[in-house]
Order: sequence, then C-alpha cells, then structure tokens
Amino acid sequence: MEPPFSSSDLPVVRLMPKAEARAVRHGFPWVYANELVQDRRTKAIEPGALAILEDANRVAMGVVAVNPKSKIVARMLDQSPDAVIDQAWFEGRLARALAHRERLYDAPYYRLVHAEADGLPGVVIDRFGDIAVVQPNAAWAERLLAPLVAALVAVTGVGCVLKNASGRSRTLEGLDAGFEVLVGAAPETAVEVPMNGATYMADLTGGQKTGLFYDQRPNHAFAAGLARGARVLDVFSHVGGFSLAALAAGATSALAVDGSEPALTLARQGAAASGLAERFDTRGGDAFAVLAALGAEGASFDLVVCDPPAFAPSRSALEAGLRAYERVARLAAPLVEEGGYLVLCSCSHAADLAKFRAASARGIGKAGRRGVLVHEGRAGPDHPVLPQLAETGYLKALVFRL
Amino acid sequence: MEPPFSSSDLPVVRLMPKAEARAVRHGFPWVYANELVQDRRTKAIEPGALAILEDANRVAMGVVAVNPKSKIVARMLDQSPDAVIDQAWFEGRLARALAHRERLYDAPYYRLVHAEADGLPGVVIDRFGDIAVVQPNAAWAERLLAPLVAALVAVTGVGCVLKNASGRSRTLEGLDAGFEVLVGAAPETAVEVPMNGATYMADLTGGQKTGLFYDQRPNHAFAAGLARGARVLDVFSHVGGFSLAALAAGATSALAVDGSEPALTLARQGAAASGLAERFDTRGGDAFAVLAALGAEGASFDLVVCDPPAFAPSRSALEAGLRAYERVARLAAPLVEEGGYLVLCSCSHAADLAKFRAASARGIGKAGRRGVLVHEGRAGPDHPVLPQLAETGYLKALVFRL
Repeated sequence: MEPPFSSSDLPVVRLMPKAEARAVRHGFPWVYANELVQDRRTKAIEPGALAILEDANRVAMGVVAVNPKSKIVARMLDQSPDAVIDQAWFEGRLARALAHRERLYDAPYYRLVHAEADGLPGVVIDRFGDIAVVQPNAAWAERLLAPLVAALVAVTGVGCVLKNASGRSRTLEGLDAGFEVLVGAAPETAVEVPMNGATYMADLTGGQKTGLFYDQRPNHAFAAGLARGARVLDVFSHVGGFSLAALAAGATSALAVDGSEPALTLARQGAAASGLAERFDTRGGDAFAVLAALGAEGASFDLVVCDPPAFAPSRSALEAGLRAYERVARLAAPLVEEGGYLVLCSCSHAADLAKFRAASARGIGKAGRRGVLVHEGRAGPDHPVLPQLAETGYLKALVFRL
Repeated sequence: MEPPFSSSDLPVVRLMPKAEARAVRHGFPWVYANELVQDRRTKAIEPGALAILEDANRVAMGVVAVNPKSKIVARMLDQSPDAVIDQAWFEGRLARALAHRERLYDAPYYRLVHAEADGLPGVVIDRFGDIAVVQPNAAWAERLLAPLVAALVAVTGVGCVLKNASGRSRTLEGLDAGFEVLVGAAPETAVEVPMNGATYMADLTGGQKTGLFYDQRPNHAFAAGLARGARVLDVFSHVGGFSLAALAAGATSALAVDGSEPALTLARQGAAASGLAERFDTRGGDAFAVLAALGAEGASFDLVVCDPPAFAPSRSALEAGLRAYERVARLAAPLVEEGGYLVLCSCSHAADLAKFRAASARGIGKAGRRGVLVHEGRAGPDHPVLPQLAETGYLKALVFRL
C-alpha cells in the first residue's frame, strides 16, 4: 500500500516527438510502448507506479499509470496533472459508476466498474448484492488496491470484497493470479443472483471469472422474449444464463449442455431456486460432441443458443476461431425447428461482428438451412466502452430465424 | 392484375458467364444489371414481370422478378423454379412473417413484412391493429398487388388495407408515388398505437412514410429505461416516439422539438391519450435553431435524444451528412447534465456504424464534453435482415453517458 501523495512527487514520462498527443487529449486512454520516450529513468519506473505524462513540448497532459513491462506502457488516470489518486479520487469515480448502474437496475447486481470507460483503467468490479468482486487487472490498481477497496466500501456499503485475480489480461501486465478475501468473510455457498425473472447461482470463490457473466443480461432477455411455449437448447450453458431466463419467460423445457459439471450443478440449483426445476434438464460433456449426438438423435428445438468460450481470443487464433464458430453454427442449425431461432454468441475480441456474422451464416448454409438476422446484441449497458475503443467490443450475440 | 400462371409460361433470363452464381445460390437476393445477359428478349421484359433465372450453364436457379429499368435487374422470389407466385404463395410468406411478429409482440402493432428478409423483395407492410399499410416498393409487387392484398386479408384478417407509395426506393424502380385505399375504408382520424407503455397517434393517410416508425421501438424502450425522474429533450421528435415512452417510464418532463406542426399535434394528442399531457411540452421550429437557442438559454436536461432524418441517404451525401451528425452532437451535448445521457440516431444507409459513431464522438468532443458509449441499438426484430445485407442496416442509435 502507498500513502496518498502529491503529484509533484511523481516522475515524468514523455511522449515521443512523433507520437499522437491529440488522441490522448481527446480521450484515448492508452500510450503504447513505441510512443513513449524510453530513457533510463522511465525504464526504471516500477510497474504500476504513477507518473505525469508530458507531450513532446513538455506540457503536462495528466496523471498516468506506467507499466514498462506492458505493451500499454501508460494508462491515463486523470487528465488533470494535479489530480491526487487517493481514496477520495476513487470515491469520485465509483460514485459516478454507481449512479449509472442504479439508474439501470432495481437491484444491486451488475458490473459496477468496467475499466477504462468508468475511469479506472484495467479495473473490473462486479457486484452481487452485499459482495463486490474486484479484478485489478492492471499493475497500478494492484498497487493502489487499499484505497480502491476502502472507497468501494465507503461508496457502496458492501460488507464483503473479494479479489479475483485471474485471466489473460493480468498475464499481459505481468501480474500473478490469485484469489483473496479483502474485506469481510467470503460466502461459504453459492450466491443467489436475481436476473431476468430467474434466480442464478454464482460461485464467487471457485467459479470462472467472477462467477457469473452480467454482460449477456440483455441477450438473455431478448432470447427469453422468443421463448414462450418453446423447447430450448442452451449449449455452453455455464450456470444456465439463457435457459433459466427462457424458462422464467414461459419456455416449456430447457436442456443445458456444458463441459463443466460444477457449472451444471449451479444451473440445477438455480433452476430449483427459481421454481423451474421441473422443466429443466442438463447434459454434461463436450459441447461439439453433444451437438452432433443430438443431431444424430434427430432432436429438435424451437430455440437453440450457443454461447461458447472465446474461440478467437487473439489475432493469431482468428482463422481457427472462425472455423470453430462456423462449426458450431453448422452443428446447431439442424437442431432448430423450421421457423425457430438460433442464437449464436462470440466473446472473442479478435472476431469482429462482420467476420463472426459471416462465419455463422456460412455454418447455417452448410447445414442446408437459411437464416435471417433478427437481432444483433452486444454487452449490456453496465459494460460501457470508450468510443475510441468501441470497435473492440468483444461480445456479440446474433439471433437468426431459420 | 395478372392471373396465376404456370412457371413454364415464364421467360428465361440468364446470368453472365462470369457472374457469381454461388452468391445467389447461397441466398443473395439480387442480380445486378451487369451480371445478367442483356439480350433483346431480356430488355423487352416488362418492369416487374416474372422470369426464370438460369445460371450460365442453363441450370434453372429460381423464379425472379425482373426490372430492366432498375440497377437491381432481378430479385429472387423463390429458389424453386417451379414456384407459382399466386395468392397461396403470398399466404405462405405472410403466415411465416406473422408467426415471427406474434411471437415478439402481444398486440398487432408491428412491421409485418420487411422486404427481402421476409421473402418479399421490396415489399414493406406495417400493421396497425385492423389496418395494414402496404408499400410495394418494387415493380413486381405493384403488378401482383391484387393476390398480395388478398393473401394479406386472408392471413391477418385486417379489415383495411392502405397503399402508401412514396419514397426514394420507388423512384429507383421507376414507380409512381401515390396513396390508395385498397380494402375497406381509410380511418378518418389518427389511429391509436400502443407501444412501450404509451399511446401514439399515427396518421396513416397523410403522415410521413407509414405514419409511425416501428423500427425505433427497442431504442425508445432503452432510452425510457434511463428516464425515471429525468428531464427529457426529444429533438426531431416526429410524433413523440422517445418522449412519450420516457414519460410513461417516469420522466418528470419531456420537451419535443420538430419542424412539423402536424407531427407535434399528433405528439400532443398521443400525450393526452396516454394521460401524460401535463408533463409534456412541444416546441416547433428548425431543430438546429432550437438546439442553439436552448444552448443560449442555458437549458439543461438529464436525457437528450436527437433522431434526425437521414442526413446521408446516399454515398454522395456522406461527407455532408457526417458533418451534420457531428453538428447535432456538438449542439446537443452542452444541453446534457453532467452524468446524463445523450441518444444520437442515424437512419442513413450510407453512414455506417463506425463513421456515425466517430462523427458523434467528434461532435461531443468539440462541445468540450466527454462521453462513454453505453448502448448501440439497431432496428427492432420486426425488421429482420438477410445476413448478406446486414452491413446495410440503416438504423443506429448510440447512447452516450456524458
């Protein structure tokens, strides 16, 4: 933990003469390694330490967090060079983030902080009622975790703060993985999360990422709106995001398929907590194998959802990833009743909307089916993005009618 | 009117040897003029007449509608070359389109047919309860209007069918403008349309297009979700799409601005019919001038919506159109309270999402404000699109938080 500091204590880093100061002035939040003067002093800055960013003419542009180990060598924290990054500063950022979520949702279950767009680069905070799960996925946030967490408790009043430090972005920042209880006591069982008329169970201490994916909430809701009286297949179901919302909206049955038995157990617990267990079934195993098996059985559904993990997490994995998305579509389309719906999701940064849409349409075509696109969904509004980074919006949900 | 026909009566048109037959086989619905053999016989085909499309190897590919006067010289109607385009054929297409809308909506107010994606190229049909408004924006539909309308009555049971034949796409097809009562009696007053908790008034005989824009329904709903307790400004309001939904969702006030007095009169009637008149006000005049005047007055709102007409209807108008969108954003942003929301819409085909987003962000920046993007909305699911034409999705609604 670092004590509050005055900005005059901070080292100075400087943009290269040819670097684009305008983008940063206009709100672009990052400075790449090749844009910064990399003198001995800059290279000696500790990962996550703060500094004053100056342009090539030595005009101060703001307070940045520096990480010489990362491709993103500096992240803008505050465009005021006089800003003091202390608990009060975090409280300001968190209060603003909270006001947006309280306007959006009736109950305190949401992504509270979505990194750059909430003014906290690299920091993700999900809220589950009285519990907050922090992912400090940038070195600066790891260093300033104490004032961040103190501010979090002060602004939201949560009684428990967990640190979930896993995932690829931490590796890129040179950070360790790990789970920690920062405030209060960790819940001993899965936590109930009310969403879209159902109750989900989130395992906040052992689950994937932060135990539940809030980003799909509006896509769950859209699909649920098609589900009245429908037989639903939910492939790569995780804890049952699509299937429980569909059942709550009146689906006659839902079958959730996932390779993770712990996830399916949580899905069944959620169905029971929602009073939907009678119409809910699960099937464990490799999703591709189950899709093929259901095809061989001649199974048929009115609504099929495939929400796989990121097949194209990076540019190098793009081609293989697109082939995997095409394969999902090809295996899933035959399971959709004529006039029914196929929801295909991608959470791959590298596969943009057009590429993912083309791969999906190709797979549907290779299955001998034709689909029209009725909806394109993105991550929910508790996942804001900077307009300058909007192209990288990772989550896409395409709803086809076949 | 033409009698039903057997496909063996139809003339044959043929793809050029180098034309891409694969795209058509995979569902691309159009053949461009330079892809078709333009012999004397083809050139003599009447606009809107049907024909059998063959590939360069004389393999029949389906029944198309031909219009030698249009850049889109042939539109695929049915990939079966034996299809007979009669009332029963239209009934099949309409029943399928209806099933989708009945799944989506509780009440019969929606776009029933959205052209190519509903298997009826160039045909748009909006439904307002017992009334259907048909836009036969392609020559073939104009010729086959009688069986189309008979099928429409048979499938939906509507008592009144109106023809609204205006708009740019008809000009491209070489069709006349005009309004006609095809079935029943035209309503003598504006029609009440329930949507998003409010009641809208649609003038189906004298209004713009078909009197009401269903495409914005989910964007109205999203903005309304931000509106509880908010002061709302709705610029280019037409009949009050955004403002009435916002008031129904609990906005404390809404001011609708439009250049059309008839539209504002309908908006006021809708507010009265919704029981929302006390919190609703209108201001006539040029929207740019009103935005500037409100800025000079120091007016402030929690939610500002700008939903202008298409500033970039064609590629040649793109640059000027993007400047106009930027100007809207620049004039509107100063009116948004800190932490409030700005909804910017574009219905320009030519301005794609990335260009429109960049123009909007530029305008916000030039107003000295910063915005994060919380939502990107498109046209509602009663406006399906073919995946092959999805890039041309015209409607974009960007929701910024400032």
